[in-house]
Amino acid sequence: MPVPASLKLNAGQLAVSQKFSVSFAGRRDAVLDRAAVRFLRRLTLLTGLPVSLEVKNSTNATVQIEAREEAPAALQLGEDESYILDVNSTRAQITAPTTLGALHGLQTLLQLVQTSPDGFYIPGVHIEDAPRFPWRGLMIDVSRHFMPVDAVERNLDAMEAVKLNVFHWHLSDDQGFRIESKDFPKLQEFGSDGLYYTQEEVRSVIAYARDRGIRVVPEFDMPGHTTSWFAGYPELASAPGPYSIERGWGIFDPAMDPTRESTYRFLEKFLGEMARLFPDAYFHVGGDEVNGKQWEANPAIQAYMKAHNLKSTLDLQHEFNGHVEKILERNHKFPVGWDEILSPGLSKETLIQSWRGQESLAEAAREGYRGILSHGYYLDQMWPAGQHYAVDPLGAGAANLPLNLSTRILGGEACMWTEFVSFENLDSRIWPRTAAIAERLWSPQSTQDAASMYARLRVEDWRLALLGAEQRAELARMISRLAGPAGSPALKTLAGIVEPVKGYTREHTAMHAGINLTSLDPLNRMVDSVSPESETGRAFSGDVEALIAGGFADHEAEARVRAELQAWQANDAALEPLLSDSALLKEISPVSKELSALAAAGLEALDAADRGATLSSARAKELAPLLADAQTPHADLLLMAAPAVQKLVTAVSPNHAANQK
Amino acid sequence: MPVPASLKLNAGQLAVSQKFSVSFAGRRDAVLDRAAVRFLRRLTLLTGLPVSLEVKNSTNATVQIEAREEAPAALQLGEDESYILDVNSTRAQITAPTTLGALHGLQTLLQLVQTSPDGFYIPGVHIEDAPRFPWRGLMIDVSRHFMPVDAVERNLDAMEAVKLNVFHWHLSDDQGFRIESKDFPKLQEFGSDGLYYTQEEVRSVIAYARDRGIRVVPEFDMPGHTTSWFAGYPELASAPGPYSIERGWGIFDPAMDPTRESTYRFLEKFLGEMARLFPDAYFHVGGDEVNGKQWEANPAIQAYMKAHNLKSTLDLQHEFNGHVEKILERNHKFPVGWDEILSPGLSKETLIQSWRGQESLAEAAREGYRGILSHGYYLDQMWPAGQHYAVDPLGAGAANLPLNLSTRILGGEACMWTEFVSFENLDSRIWPRTAAIAERLWSPQSTQDAASMYARLRVEDWRLALLGAEQRAELARMISRLAGPAGSPALKTLAGIVEPVKGYTREHTAMHAGINLTSLDPLNRMVDSVSPESETGRAFSGDVEALIAGGFADHEAEARVRAELQAWQANDAALEPLLSDSALLKEISPVSKELSALAAAGLEALDAADRGATLSSARAKELAPLLADAQTPHADLLLMAAPAVQKLVTAVSPNHAANQK
Repeated sequence: MPVPASLKLNAGQLAVSQKFSVSFAGRRDAVLDRAAVRFLRRLTLLTGLPVSLEVKNSTNATVQIEAREEAPAALQLGEDESYILDVNSTRAQITAPTTLGALHGLQTLLQLVQTSPDGFYIPGVHIEDAPRFPWRGLMIDVSRHFMPVDAVERNLDAMEAVKLNVFHWHLSDDQGFRIESKDFPKLQEFGSDGLYYTQEEVRSVIAYARDRGIRVVPEFDMPGHTTSWFAGYPELASAPGPYSIERGWGIFDPAMDPTRESTYRFLEKFLGEMARLFPDAYFHVGGDEVNGKQWEANPAIQAYMKAHNLKSTLDLQHEFNGHVEKILERNHKFPVGWDEILSPGLSKETLIQSWRGQESLAEAAREGYRGILSHGYYLDQMWPAGQHYAVDPLGAGAANLPLNLSTRILGGEACMWTEFVSFENLDSRIWPRTAAIAERLWSPQSTQDAASMYARLRVEDWRLALLGAEQRAELARMISRLAGPAGSPALKTLAGIVEPVKGYTREHTAMHAGINLTSLDPLNRMVDSVSPESETGRAFSGDVEALIAGGFADHEAEARVRAELQAWQANDAALEPLLSDSALLKEISPVSKELSALAAAGLEALDAADRGATLSSARAKELAPLLADAQTPHADLLLMAAPAVQKLVTAVSPNHAANQK
Repeated sequence: MPVPASLKLNAGQLAVSQKFSVSFAGRRDAVLDRAAVRFLRRLTLLTGLPVSLEVKNSTNATVQIEAREEAPAALQLGEDESYILDVNSTRAQITAPTTLGALHGLQTLLQLVQTSPDGFYIPGVHIEDAPRFPWRGLMIDVSRHFMPVDAVERNLDAMEAVKLNVFHWHLSDDQGFRIESKDFPKLQEFGSDGLYYTQEEVRSVIAYARDRGIRVVPEFDMPGHTTSWFAGYPELASAPGPYSIERGWGIFDPAMDPTRESTYRFLEKFLGEMARLFPDAYFHVGGDEVNGKQWEANPAIQAYMKAHNLKSTLDLQHEFNGHVEKILERNHKFPVGWDEILSPGLSKETLIQSWRGQESLAEAAREGYRGILSHGYYLDQMWPAGQHYAVDPLGAGAANLPLNLSTRILGGEACMWTEFVSFENLDSRIWPRTAAIAERLWSPQSTQDAASMYARLRVEDWRLALLGAEQRAELARMISRLAGPAGSPALKTLAGIVEPVKGYTREHTAMHAGINLTSLDPLNRMVDSVSPESETGRAFSGDVEALIAGGFADHEAEARVRAELQAWQANDAALEPLLSDSALLKEISPVSKELSALAAAGLEALDAADRGATLSSARAKELAPLLADAQTPHADLLLMAAPAVQKLVTAVSPNHAANQK
């Protein structure tokens, strides 16, 4: 995962033992050397075999790498990332035009390692592979919750494993300014609560990413989303200060004053400093969600707009963008911005990142702009992997673009916004779902089978956890904290069958309850401690659907469904003492009770089906409120068993049963 | 844990909320500042509350710290580590003569955090605490398997949590020389496979330890255990080279040549370099297990011995020790050595570390030496925590020493030898068992109740894992690797009820099988992936014993025992397909079968007991071979259910039942 462009099986298999070794055929360089050692270390993590980390120029090593050219120190968009991997019973050969392809080939090789009764091996294969899109990104918002360097690096490791090649670092927003500026130190001093990256750390992250074939694109969102800047430099704002870091979530009024020369003098110097720090040719300037209120309320700005014939605050923002664009141009950078940045005068070199969708991208392409898709790839929405997988940058409104325009759509980016994500559960919100997006962006468009994707995703999840990604360890630790020292299998059972609510429901629920959520709220609840996607829930739903479709004849599926239902039915009794004893767990008491009641209803339906009977109308009506309530979120959790149990009950309810006959 | 010297309950409890804060009453220093921030970070990990990390001089903070004096930069043996902790409903007050006591007070405070239906709180207490022994150490052998810096630092964090204060760093041995020497770079170049600490890393570990109130004592084992030195400097040896790193385990012949001036010139320079690097006043020079064979075989050494009237190789070793002692004296260091170092001329300033036992220490004390105990604290032996807990430095042969001699016994050290421990499972071999040893060395001698210790150890295990120790995560990862992507609850069940074999059985089993174990062997087997002590096994044995003692009247205990037995009985059928499919798991197939057979026997006995019946003599005889075999190791694993099932069967066997009547 991602599925390669082409794969044929070779005869035989290559044994993986302690004598496994890597060598270079022909040229070698420091990046390749480190990649080979990293490969061998990862092989050790996957197998436990203590392979030697020495890499030689030798012709009898297990893996021969031939990368014809070194990739440039500052990677460009559209580098050749292709490779050929040939494995037979005596050796594996990786051939690539550049080091980047060799890195990808090594990752593919690692993914092929299998266990057998005789030891570890790699099956004989011939793979010719290259990415479908040149821009395959992951954005991490480190402003709303700061993520330490080791968390960033761990995620770069995982990105390498699934062949993502752009790390988009959302470094500033209303809730935090996360990077050291030497020219304007009050940015981090007043804008970060002390939680920011030093320039030395940034340089080391960039080098770490470069080693893994990953470009780093920084984002400084402007002119809105800038409250944290104003904490140190209120003179940049369009309304008088003082300002302090925004603690709430949402869209806020503060915006830079686009009418003052001093704003641009500041940006000229600041963006210059950052442009020198980040070697990539692309530089993200945000540009989203400016509500214009400060501009409308400021008489000087209003006067400026009138004098310059700017009819709306959007026009004013576009003028601002024009200034920023020129600053970036002087620094030899191409701007990247969210949809809103698009305007008549915008330079064609600007790259559009679309949260609006493929139609918006197609429109931009028709106007001559290149773009990447993020709509449908918002990880914070907690959608299942299959839903992200179904989104194609060249699907929906961009499906029928002619080739000369479709090539302007360069790929996409998974976006990890972090209103409800902290350093404690970051990996669990990104992985493994992002591997499905990575496959969408790398593999041929024809790769569409969700069932196959899920089968491979399960393996990838396991692999990533062995290699150091913490998605499993994080949730285990957080559930253990909630369960207390004695542990609680019942809490784990419940955790396994719930998911966080989807979309913006968590915000909306709080709003309706009159609760003002902030960045200082603890993220230590059950909803923070469970996976975005319940594997148990998916398996259970699959079994129930198969069972109903097959007229309850599949006895193995029925046994599995019954066993789950019985365990859930008994679960609340085991769990309740713990729930009532903990301030953090009290809120999930209704969810736990509902799971047990739901399971009882499911068992009743299953029993009826076994007898070839249907429920009475009265009984079916009695169950309706329970089933409806179980499909309603409580404590920001969804009970993933509910839709399947609803189907079970419906299948043995009078109307349905009559329809079937 | 460890239990404080004195504790009284105060009225009320102190709420722990996001507003929790720390301040200093009076003086503060950099160590205290960092300790306070560390405390707040750990509080966040324990609760999920995002408390502010700002530390102020304020009188209304939740925690007030008053540490009257700064401890010296280079900690001395016997610093005042005492503290007083007073918690009431409005604040917690820590008072200590020095920063060290304040560090301990903060750790105790963290341990008091509790969950309740209303949130987190700390109960009102008044604690006056000080350690029983001034030397409370953990030795980690990084020679046999190298442990990276982050593993060392993680273990220093855990040491701080349980108030251990000496990190004994076993840096060289036959199998590896793990530290950079600038004067003799061939030591690490030829002696480490590239796996060693740079001096910069060493300095950073020392500073890290110092921040946590922990002294760092390096060990360079001499004149034996030095093969890895000779790989780069064969001229130091007593027999001609070339030498290479020793890959096997055991006691080897190579030893330094104690008759040549050049050996001492080397050591003068090398030990000087290391003495400057390590600020502690104590310096460990090993001195154990010299077999003398190279000395006996070398005519020049034999001639020297004759000329100097040295009657045995032991005498020669003592002469060598005398030279080393003088070098250390010139560098203002006190030597530390293993038992064997003790000899008539040895300086009284030498500290004896005893692997032989309390009698050996008592003997040394009578001769005027100070000592520390490690006999009984060897973690690599895989003994249960309770067994270590029962060992007292002033117990057994040292129990009746008069006070003037017993004060020469300064404490003890847990020893983590790493023949069968890698970076992947290090924490699981150290924690939580070492917390029991830490309590033995800190708490009053009267603290002896093993049941109470185990109850607290369980909490400490949970706490340490939340704070960052990896004992649980490591084993979860290794079992997950063995189980493969689909996971295997049945493998986890088996893993939960087995333990690695004890003592030196693993070596002996291999020897009898003609297998030559080496440091290059993978440590990826089941035995490497399970905890040294099975909590399930201990609980099951406790239930069975209670059940038998109560004449099978305790229905709750019986239900638990029955449920375990039923799960085990069914386990092999679920597990077998996985076992036969994996080269690594094949070897545990007999263990799995045995567990299921054992469980069936247990259920049979339980059924008989329920009926008030006994097994027939014939049946009891039939079961005997199974029960005996189940108590024999397979695949270096012990089936911890076996002794209890044996007791169950015995309880309903004819002879026993007759005796009871």
